[in-house]
Amino acid sequence: MPLFRKIITVSTRHEGEVINLTLQVAAVIRESKIQEGLVHLFVKHSTAALTTIEYEPGVLADLSRALSILAPDDAVYAHDKKWGDGNGRSHVKAALVGPSLTVPVVGGELSCGTWQQVVLLELDVNAGREREVICTVTGE
Amino acid sequence: MPLFRKIITVSTRHEGEVINLTLQVAAVIRESKIQEGLVHLFVKHSTAALTTIEYEPGVLADLSRALSILAPDDAVYAHDKKWGDGNGRSHVKAALVGPSLTVPVVGGELSCGTWQQVVLLELDVNAGREREVICTVTGE
Amino acid sequence: MPLFRKIITVSTRHEGEVINLTLQVAAVIRESKIQEGLVHLFVKHSTAALTTIEYEPGVLADLSRALSILAPDDAVYAHDKKWGDGNGRSHVKAALVGPSLTVPVVGGELSCGTWQQVVLLELDVNAGREREVICTVTGE
Repeated sequence: MPLFRKIITVSTRHEGEVINLTLQVAAVIRESKIQEGLVHLFVKHSTAALTTIEYEPGVLADLSRALSILAPDDAVYAHDKKWGDGNGRSHVKAALVGPSLTVPVVGGELSCGTWQQVVLLELDVNAGREREVICTVTGE
Repeated sequence: MPLFRKIITVSTRHEGEVINLTLQVAAVIRESKIQEGLVHLFVKHSTAALTTIEYEPGVLADLSRALSILAPDDAVYAHDKKWGDGNGRSHVKAALVGPSLTVPVVGGELSCGTWQQVVLLELDVNAGREREVICTVTGE
Repeated sequence: MPLFRKIITVSTRHEGEVINLTLQVAAVIRESKIQEGLVHLFVKHSTAALTTIEYEPGVLADLSRALSILAPDDAVYAHDKKWGDGNGRSHVKAALVGPSLTVPVVGGELSCGTWQQVVLLELDVNAGREREVICTVTGE
């Protein structure tokens, strides 16, 4: 079973930004020539995360608010007190959503639902970052 | 390394329903004849999710309440204001729990803990849906 | 594509403990001799979970507090009322964080970010447990 790997690099601009990776992941699958298998995505950072969601501004705002219930902007973070990074909430949100996502490849296509997009969540308060997502396609 | 794929289709009846997929996933593994490997599960919808949990009514009710802390029934959702779907909370919960789960296959069996079942969470407020879970078994 | 499997066993001492598995997972990858691929981790228990996080005491305390927003210590749990285990909150947290994590193997190494460690969260209120994490390395 072959394995094809490519890194998707995205530039983010601000905390709470949600980047739609669906087209880039679909392009990696096409390049791999794999027809039936799985694509695994991993974001190599502790203040970003991966999931799927309907890519519609209302839903994205609702998600952002839900994450702020878990890790409010105005809470006191032990991480921030110690290191002064100011991104304690970013680490917490990223650990809960998670860095890893696997999606089936069916007939050479990414097999998401109609309203289901693959997204990267930029959770860091410190803006203007380059984020690496490692794509690994396996199958036949 | 062979790859075996099958779709499990489940009919759900109401928001908050938790469907135990464990026996169906075990049957797919047996059909695959794969002895050592992994089974990947993916729900192709943006208002449902997959995880593992003890399948006991008390725990399931406790989980449902925890998800309502993240995305309360009575909050105002930007998604609902724009589209009138009324399922803003469903999208938020699904994105946080996630659509994807991978479990080891050991000795031809699904290798969960004794009290650990594979479940689909129906999170949509609009009842009576067909949900597709794509099962991909890989291994030897 | 070969498959290599090993179980990492860890002894935990108290609720909220976060165990850094990074070095043990890296050792399993080395033993597998696999250079390019994926390592899948699965915790076979319904009151523990896996994720990645910066392994710094402040962040770990912040994560623990966020999980207590979802499943407070002083809430009434249906699971506890029925079974008297007292670990209703543990089940809820574990189902939301999830039991499964996959990380790329690149050049024979675990490909996490600089500040990103693989961790097991001990969420059970009943202390002193042995936890099994099944590691499956696939690739070439």
